[in-house]
Amino acid sequence: RNRVLVTGGAGFVGSHLCDYLVARGDHVICLDNFFTGSKENIAHLIGKPNFEVIRHDVVEPILLEVDQIFHCACPASPIHYKYNPIKTAKTSFLGTMNMLGLAKRCKARFLITSTSEVYGDPLEHPQRETYWGNVNPIGERSCYDEGKRVAETLTMDYYREHNLQVRIVRIFNTYGPRMALDDGRVVSNFVSQALTNKPITVYGDGQQTRSFQYVSDLVKGLVTVMDGPEIGPFNIGNPGEFTMLELANLVKEVVNPKAVIEYRENTADDPKCRKPDITKVKTTLGWEPVVPLREGLERMVDDFKKRLGVE
Amino acid sequence: RNRVLVTGGAGFVGSHLCDYLVARGDHVICLDNFFTGSKENIAHLIGKPNFEVIRHDVVEPILLEVDQIFHCACPASPIHYKYNPIKTAKTSFLGTMNMLGLAKRCKARFLITSTSEVYGDPLEHPQRETYWGNVNPIGERSCYDEGKRVAETLTMDYYREHNLQVRIVRIFNTYGPRMALDDGRVVSNFVSQALTNKPITVYGDGQQTRSFQYVSDLVKGLVTVMDGPEIGPFNIGNPGEFTMLELANLVKEVVNPKAVIEYRENTADDPKCRKPDITKVKTTLGWEPVVPLREGLERMVDDFKKRLGVE
Ligand SMILES: NC(=O)c1ccc[n+]([C@@H]2O[C@H](COP(=O)([O-])OP(=O)(O)OC[C@H]3O[C@@H](n4cnc5c(N)ncnc54)[C@H](O)[C@@H]3O)[C@@H](O)[C@H]2O)c1
Ligand SMILES: NC(=O)c1ccc[n+]([C@@H]2O[C@H](COP(=O)([O-])OP(=O)(O)OC[C@H]3O[C@@H](n4cnc5c(N)ncnc54)[C@H](O)[C@@H]3O)[C@@H](O)[C@H]2O)c1
Ligand SMILES: O=c1ccn([C@@H]2O[C@H](COP(=O)(O)OP(=O)(O)O)[C@@H](O)[C@H]2O)c(=O)[nH]1
Ligand SMILES: O=c1ccn([C@@H]2O[C@H](COP(=O)(O)OP(=O)(O)O)[C@@H](O)[C@H]2O)c(=O)[nH]1
Ligand SMILES: O=c1ccn([C@@H]2O[C@H](COP(=O)(O)OP(=O)(O)O)[C@@H](O)[C@H]2O)c(=O)[nH]1
Ligand SMILES: O=c1ccn([C@@H]2O[C@H](COP(=O)(O)OP(=O)(O)O)[C@@H](O)[C@H]2O)c(=O)[nH]1
Repeated sequence: RNRVLVTGGAGFVGSHLCDYLVARGDHVICLDNFFTGSKENIAHLIGKPNFEVIRHDVVEPILLEVDQIFHCACPASPIHYKYNPIKTAKTSFLGTMNMLGLAKRCKARFLITSTSEVYGDPLEHPQRETYWGNVNPIGERSCYDEGKRVAETLTMDYYREHNLQVRIVRIFNTYGPRMALDDGRVVSNFVSQALTNKPITVYGDGQQTRSFQYVSDLVKGLVTVMDGPEIGPFNIGNPGEFTMLELANLVKEVVNPKAVIEYRENTADDPKCRKPDITKVKTTLGWEPVVPLREGLERMVDDFKKRLGVE
Repeated sequence: RNRVLVTGGAGFVGSHLCDYLVARGDHVICLDNFFTGSKENIAHLIGKPNFEVIRHDVVEPILLEVDQIFHCACPASPIHYKYNPIKTAKTSFLGTMNMLGLAKRCKARFLITSTSEVYGDPLEHPQRETYWGNVNPIGERSCYDEGKRVAETLTMDYYREHNLQVRIVRIFNTYGPRMALDDGRVVSNFVSQALTNKPITVYGDGQQTRSFQYVSDLVKGLVTVMDGPEIGPFNIGNPGEFTMLELANLVKEVVNPKAVIEYRENTADDPKCRKPDITKVKTTLGWEPVVPLREGLERMVDDFKKRLGVE
């Protein structure tokens, strides 16, 4: 039986990953400090014989016996990671260090959920894994961006120094059910706004682009990379690229045609564009996303309605 | 009386800084784990009433009472920082975190000796402080480069979150007496080779450039920034730019005209050029370097002869 640790398992991505692994029959340990995650996200798993939860902060060491570690614990949305930037950097560095130490002791395989933010405000478009990025080391986003970059560094050095089995995934913007309602990310904002008849808030001129992946595609990508033979780094994302204005209009169409769009000032160091080149993972591991944006938005509306208490 | 902590105070830069501060009358605490530093570098200070040494590793917390912290503890030459990359990253992150925590508790002013390596293999030339850099996050140099970048991030976040008094200095290649003989850096290699009648080893085609600053200029720069009113980051370096072949020929001229030049394979991710734009520190604080390369080389020859036991 495969004993799998999912750190950040009560979060958005982590909880969907736990669902998948529990269904597959693995023994899953979900570790979380519940900073941005919630009991609700995993409530339906509690009580299953092959699932358990540990309340723990990854900046502290922990002793467990496992075969695989999906290391997802880290606040991921700008609102949350800017809330206490020092803690964010500690989570990224110390959390990754502790989980690598654990993996080393257990001879477990370790996967880090890094991010497209390691490319920063990219000068190469779309971004390939060979691109070194354009990141402000001392800006307001750096606790997250630089935190993830150095977490990748540590991961590669545990591979090089200790021959640990490691995997590096760079996740591009992902959306779906269970996204925190208050996390300020664009898809959850727009969908909530449209559902509650508030104006859809487009930051800046709305011409900046992102590429949005539905969470079930990501989960399959993570498992594919973990079980595959290559370290990576691998971009995991959906190459469909949209401006924020296009997204706003699509949300209107799908959720509420009467919604109004309003413009707001943009935040500091906001990347102007982002789109994964997924050639590497497609050709080496055969993974690619299958859920188009419109369909993914439709799939998340029910969950948001329920949680917002509308209709 | 100014109580000053110099971490890495038994190293090349730190020991010259201790000399300056002790002469100025500060009470100096030199903290070092002696990984690359040595007792020799500070032997002449031991016994002075305003100087003391603590053997301690900055990855562990420590309680001291101080007014200023010059945080220099970190292996700086590629040979040493690649020796144990995980330890290098820990020293950079945990060491900086602990010294920031100490500064916060003492309300001390904190200066970090960052590096021109945060610019990586720069696409902007010369480098200004606004440049975000071109660094490989998962290469062999990343433990140092990314370690320093995230140390700058932490420093800025202690400023933003706790209003700590911080200073960030990005040091460009520095040379002078007391450089470790075995550290593989280009100036110490060339001077040692020329003095011992070994071939001068130029890596690659020798067309890569660096800008070399004499250590007394750096020490004045560090103190100027620490005592000045601005956070930085400030580039501290000498804008005189030389190819490695030019440097080799100058060393021949100054040290040993009979020396022979030999070419060797270059190392991974070697930056092709590097030259500081020092406009910011010059205009805001009035600092600029005064020792030209030829003169600096002449000044370090005696020290190297003594330590190598030649003539
Ligand atoms: N969702 C995306 O679009 C996206 C994009 C790129 C990368 N990622 C990465 O994927 C991972 C999961 O992101 P998410 O979207 O699910 O975010 P999330 O905030 O929903 O989940 C993160 C989880 O980690 C937990 N956590 C945070 N700090 C912790 C700590 N110190 N100790 C223990 N648990 C801690 C939180 O409570 C939460 O349950 C993160 O590492 C994130 O950086 C996500
Ligand atoms: N010399 C340069 O050209 C240069 C250029 C850029 C930046 N810097 C920075 O300046 C600082 C000093 O560099 P240097 O050239 O004097 O190098 P050095 O190796 O001579 O000095 C570093 C000192 O730190 C000590 N040290 C290392 N790890 C430690 C730890 N974990 N705990 C306690 N002490 C530790 C070493 O023993 C040594 O005495 C470093 O932070 C370096 O990154 C130097
Ligand atoms: O089962 C383990 C093994 C290690 N660690 C932590 O992981 C980190 C890195 O461990 P490693 O053995 O690589 O380094 P070291 O202990 O030598 O610093 C250390 O801080 C450990 O406390 C952990 O939390 N659980
Ligand atoms: O209500 C919102 C929230 C975000 N954004 C924009 O949407 C993009 C994606 O932001 P998000 O915080 O979701 O993710 P990230 O910037 O981390 O990719 C950015 O350009 C934001 O400026 C927006 O226009 N309106
Ligand atoms: O005098 C001190 C105060 C703090 N620290 C260390 O500095 C780090 C950061 O301290 P801070 O107070 O900022 O953070 P916290 O203790 O809240 O994590 C901690 O690991 C402390 O152990 C230290 O070494 N000496
Ligand atoms: O014996 C040597 C040592 C270094 N170098 C080159 O000198 C430059 C500076 O190297 P160093 O290690 O001194 O510093 P850094 O690369 O950190 O600037 C690099 O291009 C090296 O390839 C060289 O040609 N011969």
